[in-house]
Order: sequence, then structure tokens, then C-alpha cells
Amino acid sequence: MEFTVQQIADLLQGEVEGDNLVKVSTLAKIEEAQRGALAFLSNPKYEPFLYSTGASAVIVSDKLELKKPVQAALIRVADPYSSFSTLLQYYQTALIASKTGVEEPSYIGSGSQIGDNHYRGAFSYIGNNCIIGENVRLFPHVYLGDNVKIGDNTTIFAGAKLYANTVVGNNCTIHAGAVIGSDGFGFAPQSDGTYKAIPQIGNVILEDDISVGANTTIDCATMGSTIIHKGSKIDNLVQIAHNVEVGSNTVIASQTGISGSTKIGSNCVIAGQVGIVGHISLADKTTVGAQSGVSKSVKETGTIIQGSPAFDYKQNLRAMTVFRKLPELQREVELLKGKPESQQKQGANS
Amino acid sequence: MEFTVQQIADLLQGEVEGDNLVKVSTLAKIEEAQRGALAFLSNPKYEPFLYSTGASAVIVSDKLELKKPVQAALIRVADPYSSFSTLLQYYQTALIASKTGVEEPSYIGSGSQIGDNHYRGAFSYIGNNCIIGENVRLFPHVYLGDNVKIGDNTTIFAGAKLYANTVVGNNCTIHAGAVIGSDGFGFAPQSDGTYKAIPQIGNVILEDDISVGANTTIDCATMGSTIIHKGSKIDNLVQIAHNVEVGSNTVIASQTGISGSTKIGSNCVIAGQVGIVGHISLADKTTVGAQSGVSKSVKETGTIIQGSPAFDYKQNLRAMTVFRKLPELQREVELLKGKPESQQKQGANS
Amino acid sequence: MEFTVQQIADLLQGEVEGDNLVKVSTLAKIEEAQRGALAFLSNPKYEPFLYSTGASAVIVSDKLELKKPVQAALIRVADPYSSFSTLLQYYQTALIASKTGVEEPSYIGSGSQIGDNHYRGAFSYIGNNCIIGENVRLFPHVYLGDNVKIGDNTTIFAGAKLYANTVVGNNCTIHAGAVIGSDGFGFAPQSDGTYKAIPQIGNVILEDDISVGANTTIDCATMGSTIIHKGSKIDNLVQIAHNVEVGSNTVIASQTGISGSTKIGSNCVIAGQVGIVGHISLADKTTVGAQSGVSKSVKETGTIIQGSPAFDYKQNLRAMTVFRKLPELQREVELLKGKPESQQKQGANS
Repeated sequence: MEFTVQQIADLLQGEVEGDNLVKVSTLAKIEEAQRGALAFLSNPKYEPFLYSTGASAVIVSDKLELKKPVQAALIRVADPYSSFSTLLQYYQTALIASKTGVEEPSYIGSGSQIGDNHYRGAFSYIGNNCIIGENVRLFPHVYLGDNVKIGDNTTIFAGAKLYANTVVGNNCTIHAGAVIGSDGFGFAPQSDGTYKAIPQIGNVILEDDISVGANTTIDCATMGSTIIHKGSKIDNLVQIAHNVEVGSNTVIASQTGISGSTKIGSNCVIAGQVGIVGHISLADKTTVGAQSGVSKSVKETGTIIQGSPAFDYKQNLRAMTVFRKLPELQREVELLKGKPESQQKQGANS
Repeated sequence: MEFTVQQIADLLQGEVEGDNLVKVSTLAKIEEAQRGALAFLSNPKYEPFLYSTGASAVIVSDKLELKKPVQAALIRVADPYSSFSTLLQYYQTALIASKTGVEEPSYIGSGSQIGDNHYRGAFSYIGNNCIIGENVRLFPHVYLGDNVKIGDNTTIFAGAKLYANTVVGNNCTIHAGAVIGSDGFGFAPQSDGTYKAIPQIGNVILEDDISVGANTTIDCATMGSTIIHKGSKIDNLVQIAHNVEVGSNTVIASQTGISGSTKIGSNCVIAGQVGIVGHISLADKTTVGAQSGVSKSVKETGTIIQGSPAFDYKQNLRAMTVFRKLPELQREVELLKGKPESQQKQGANS
Repeated sequence: MEFTVQQIADLLQGEVEGDNLVKVSTLAKIEEAQRGALAFLSNPKYEPFLYSTGASAVIVSDKLELKKPVQAALIRVADPYSSFSTLLQYYQTALIASKTGVEEPSYIGSGSQIGDNHYRGAFSYIGNNCIIGENVRLFPHVYLGDNVKIGDNTTIFAGAKLYANTVVGNNCTIHAGAVIGSDGFGFAPQSDGTYKAIPQIGNVILEDDISVGANTTIDCATMGSTIIHKGSKIDNLVQIAHNVEVGSNTVIASQTGISGSTKIGSNCVIAGQVGIVGHISLADKTTVGAQSGVSKSVKETGTIIQGSPAFDYKQNLRAMTVFRKLPELQREVELLKGKPESQQKQGANS
């Protein structure tokens, strides 16, 4: 796809400065852009790149005063970052929307229905009695078990697996390799030391506007539903156990694990590689620092915690500061006790 | 599937109290159950829900004395939890067993054989010279490389991948996206700073009654076998490296990683996000707390460890208790040294 | 495949001692080898096994002086380990190379081309306008989106998913279930508490000689490319976020996560379960210990760090040594303050 700078400017309701017929065919960062690319300048720190960029055109603020001559054509708008984001959105939407129709072989079970304007990639699988909305894209190797329900405008990338009875809302994105609805990890210890599987007959519900990352796993409930509420975003390789409930607009970064029956509030931010034990709850707007281990419920809205086990973020920071100097602290205590330094323990001196 | 309360009671050898012809079609928790659902009451804490539940029927103890009138039909049995578990088991078994036959297109290589009463989903792949037992369910997109052996009554969910030469026992469950038998991570550093792959020609053996979670990875041995012994249960997103040996009836929770050639004993409990270094061994009945990093062998049966690096669980708990108060401890040492508080370091006061 | 000991010796330019017509058909460790297997002895610690091994033949040093009679045939070479590695390499190469041709059904989009001597497994999917080199093996259920480029001699195992525009070099290995090119985790918070997806229109570039482990995820760049430079080796279940750059010959162990826009140097060693924050850089030859959390750039080549947050490896070791004894340290401080032991806090004594 190739556009003139004037066409882009019209779309963004901006004004062109320079050659309005120059053509652009891709989007790039101002510091990396080559001929044919459109870039943007929002952060003043990057202004020096404006005078050296290889971009054919740059979106800039209508208030920017040039300090040197610029080779690229300029498109002046009120908010360059927002305008550029709009273009990115168009670009990505166009890419996804270009996938349409049914590639063969693909499989659709009995009693299943799928709305208009869909894409079903080759080797995609839809079980029996599924109900699928409009504008849905199922990439190759997607698996939908029986009785799966999917809303409108949802995209499921290659090889994601949704077990039977999973429910997905509108405008969701599920990335490649994600597994939704696998059995919860429930085993009852027997008197002979063996374990007996506790049947997991519930399901997973993803509400609207959910994003699930690549190779993330969300287990079905033992009974009832594991629920991710509207607008939450889950990164790659996250584990969400059976009967967990995640509030709306909560963000969970990569490789975090949430154990069974825990309830996470709304508008929480859970950083990467966090572990959260089962059967607790985190208040709305809780922030959990990376690699933390959360072992207790958080009751107050807006709490920030860190550490394994996690506690108040600032308190943890202070404790970690002293932790690094523990050998010195130990030495001071030895000195206070009157021990000559030569008798002190190896660990503190070596 | 719909049953009368009397039919359920007969199955459980229980006695009906109330309307024995009420029909139930699903199982639910007493606090969430709606009309048409069958619930149970085992933990006395939940007794208040008995008088308000929407369930059409509830399984209760034959010793329970009602404190108020109950709308639901009751099924009285000796052990409500156990009876309910039995029903859950029937339910899940019926669901799995309902999958039977071969969906097309599916692929089976030359020289492979598969026992009676199997399910092969569409796009499932069986390589050459595989030997597969009876009552085996291979869901869509399952991949079995050449020479794979699978016992009876094993279920492999959608998209699990078993590399060539993998051996799986009877009554195993492998969840979606699990990868069994991928190359161990072995690279020999060369003098020029590059790495040369060390060929990994061994395999993985899963004995009977193993459960492997979604997107878990178990690498093949460099030579010989990576072995998971009978009855062990492995959660989602676990990493098991080449030449690891896991004893029988050991439970490994989500996102744990076990490095090469380590031997885990029988009846161990490894919590979530644990890391275990290579070439060590853990005694039987070792318990490792969540997020621990195990860097040394554990020799005594029944040891409980925690921390990164992990050591005795209680000792770690005590150390963590002091850790939180390190700034205060540091301040006390400064005071003992006679420094006025104003001269103390920022870290302890801010 | 079955060979006589003489044939193996000729291949390795070694000399046979014992029966040169004995046949071997597999490779095994000297301590585990059975009849029909070929083993090797390199480490003198293992010499006792030489006199008891069940192997039919053993590769030994041409300098080894036997202390007892040996039943196995011996092949004497200059460097037994290197000779054995050569055989392993032959063995594995032969296994992979035995896969050739196209199994049906498989899918190839319009405008895509693939070089000679390739393997395309059943249910493999190649999108539109892909360019694929010679001697490439695509196992069953592999997915290549549109415009993917792959060099010569690259093997992609079952079910790996490469999003559109991914570029892979020569001699790469991508293991089952790996996802390359999924959307970076970028969401802009809106004033109403919701998040808006930031389009991710970049790609992933894997240069030559890269190994990617099973179920590992590598996200595409927001714009531009996420790049893994030549010769780097990535283990299973690793997460590499958008716009990350990994230098050449860097090794990243299992379950490590690298956040967005971070640059890792060349010849680094990142151990398992490490987390690295975004927008930092690690110098060449940085070593990061297992389970570390790296929160700051590392500027000096050859730095070794450990801990969460990570700092100097030796300093961390010393601090951890004192950490274990914190209750005792606290007690000493209490004693110095003159408190009778009975009044001291519970945490330090229990």
C-alpha cells in the first residue's frame, strides 16, 4: 500500500509542509526510518533526528518551530503521537481484515454456526454446537472444542486451543498457542500416597476486549467459571489457575502465575514473573512489582507491594538496601561485641 | 443429560428427602447453584447456604439435623463430598468417552497401529511405527512423531506434541500444547565463542497415571531417557530438562523448572515457580515452597525447604521476618555505635 | 541402522582392540549401555564402568592402559569425547534428514517458494509470498504467516508458529510450540481506566545458527525488528518482548523473561527464570545467575550478577550468607542493647 503525503495529511486533518506528492509505504521510528517511510516526532528529546532522518515524511506538532532545514515532508497536526497511533491502528486493522474466507481443509462440527465476514484458516477446527459472531478471524490450527461461544470482532491467532464450553466476548484477541479451559490442577491425595484427579467440569469466560498472550494458559473452573472481566490484558506465558477471577482493566505481565480461586481486583497492574497464592484477593488498583510472591490478601485499594513474600513496596526497597550491606552490618555488630576482627566469621569478610 | 433425584440417590445408595422426581441436569457449588443443579454440603461452614440455595437438590450427610426448612430435595449419604466426587467423575468420564471414531482429515503413518475404541480428531498426526493402546483419545492437532508408544486409556488434548520415540503409559492425561521430547538444551562452547549443539538422541518416558499440564515442556535425554515415574502430576508451563528423573506420586506446580540430570524423589511436593539446578537429587517426600531456588541436594526424607537459595523452611521464615525490619535493625546498630541519628545513612531512614 | 565396530573405527580413524565384527545399533552412556550399544570413556572417574559395562563396544583414549580385562570391543582414538560427539551428530543428522518430501494435506499459499530437498509435514501451513531456502524441514502443524523468510538448512519442529513477516536465517532450529512474532504487549492507558492496544507492526529477525526452545515466545517489534543475532541459543518457555535485541552467541536458559526494548550483549549467559526489565542494556559477556531480577543496565564486560534485584555475584553471596543468620544477628543486637533475652521478639526466638 502506497500513499502520498497529501492523502495521509487529509486523513489526519493535518497540513503539509514540503512536497505533498512524496509517497510513503511504511511506518517507522524517526531514528530508524528509511526512504519511503513515514515517522513522527512527539518527544522533544528526539527533535535532533528530525534534521537527519531518512524518512520521506514526518508527522510533527503544528506548534513546532524548525531550528534547521528539514529534508522530509512534514505533516503538521495538533497531537503527532495520537495521529501516528491512528495510522498504526489503520495499518494493523487493514492487515487483519485482509484475511477473509475459508481455507481448506478446515473442520466445522455439527450444529455450529459462524457469523458473516469471517476468516477460517486451513486446519482450523470448530467442534459441535459452537456459536461464533461476526467478523471473527480464526487463524490456521485454531481449535475450538464443543459448545464454545465467541462474540463479534474477535481474532484468534494460529494454534490457540479453546477447550469445550469456553466463552469469549467481543473484540478479544487470543494469541498463538494460548490454551484456554484446560483442566484445573486438582488432585486429592489418597491414603496410599497416590493422587486421584478431581474432575474439572467448569469453564472459562473471557468477557469483552480481553487480550491473551502467546502460550498463556487459563484453566477451567472445577465447577462454575474462571472469569476474566472486560478489558483486561494478559501477556505471554501467564498461568491462570482454576476458579480465578480477574477484574476489569487489569494488566498481567509475562510469566506471572495466579493460583486457584484467587480474586484479582479491577485496574490492577501485575508485573512479570509474579506468583500469587490461591484463595486470596487483591483490592482494586493493586500494583505488584516484578518477581513478587503474594501470599496474603491485599485489602486497601491502590496498594503497591513488592518482594517474595511481598509487602509494602517502599519498606521492601529499604530492606533490600540494607540487605546488600548485611556483611558490613554483621561486622559492625561483631565490633560492638568487642571481638577482634580476625576472629570474625569467614562469611562476613571473604 | 437429565436425571431425577431418585436416580441419583439410587446410584449413590442414598435416601431422598423431599421431591424424588425433581430433575437435575448439572452440578454446581451450593453457594452458586441455580434451578436444575445438584449441589452438596460437606463443610459445616457452608450450612447457611443450604437454606437459601437455588439448587434443585443437595447431597447432605445422613447425620445432618436441619435447623430450618429447605426448598431443595435432599439426598442423604454417609459422605457427601465423596459421593459428589463420584458424580463429578461419572460426568467427566462421560464427556471424554463421548468422543470416539476418526474425524477427517487425520494422518497416520506407515506401520502404526492403534487399539480399539479410540478417538482421532481432525488434523491429528500419527507418525510411522507408533504403537497405541485401547481407549486412547487423540484430540485435534495432536502430533505423535515416529515410534511413539502409548498405553491404554490415555487422553492427549488438542495440539500436544510428542517427539519421536516418546513412551507414554496407561491412564495418562496430556493437556493441550504440551511438548514432550524436544531437544535438551545442550551446547558445547567452542574456542571462538560460538556454541555447537550436543545431539540429543534419548527420549522421554511417562509411566502410568501421569498428568502433564498445558504448554508444559519435557525435554528428551541426551542419551537414555528423561523419566516421570508412575502417578506423578505436573501442572501447566512446567519445564523439565534432559535426563531429569521424577519419582512416583510427585506433584509439580505451575511454572516450575527442573534443570538437567536432576533426580526428584517420590511423593515430593514442588510448589509453583520453583527452580531446581541440575545434577542434584531431592529425597522422597521433599516439599519445596513456591518461588524457591534449590541449589543443593536434599538428603533427608520429608525435608521442607523455602527461599532462593532454598534452605530450611522455618529458618527461612524467621530470616524473612527479620529481613522486613532490616532498616530498624541497622538503626539500632548505628545507635549502639553512638552515632547521632541525624548522621545515619539515608537508606535506613528515608 | 547397524554397523560393525570396524566400520565405526574406520569412520573415526581409530584402531579396534577385540572383536572388530561385533555389531552395534545404538549409542549409550557407559554406565547404562546394553548389548548392541556403543559407549565412550573420556572422564577417568568413569573408568570402573569400562570393566563392567554391557556395551558391545567402547570408544577409549589411545593412551588408556587397561587395569583389568574388558569384555567390550574397544575403539582407540585420540579424543574419545570428540569422536563420540561426531557419531552423535551423524546419528541425529541422519534422523532429521530422513524426513523428506511433502505429506498431505499440507497448505501453501500463493506466491510462496521453497527450495530443494525439503520436508513439509502433514497439516503444515505456509502463507502467501513466503521465501524458503533449501534443505528446510517443516514438521506437521508448523504455521508460517505471510511474507515469512527462512534460510537454508533450518528445521522447524511440530506446531511452531511464525507470524507474518518473520525472518529466520540459515541453520536454525525452532522447537515445537514456539511462537515467533506475536504482538508485543503494548497498551496505552486511557483516562477512563481502560487500555487501548498499541498496534505492533514490526517483526522478528532470527539470524543464522539460532536455536529456539519449545513453547518459547518472541514478540514482534512495535516498529522495526526484535532481533536475535547469530549463534544465540534460547531454551524452552523463554519470553522475549517487543524490540528486544539479543547479541550473538548468547545463551538464555529456560523460563527467563526479557522485557521490551532491552539490549542483551554478545556471549552473555542468562541462567534460568531470570527476569530483565525493559529499556536497559547488558554488556557483552554478562553472566546473570538463576532467578535473578535485573533492574539496571550492566556496563562492564564480563560482569557477573545475582539476586532480585541483581547486584555483584560475590556481594550477593555474602549477603545471603548473613541473611540466613538474621535471627541470630538480631538477637546479638538485642543483647548489646541490654535487653534480657526473655523480652526479645518472638520472630527471633521461635
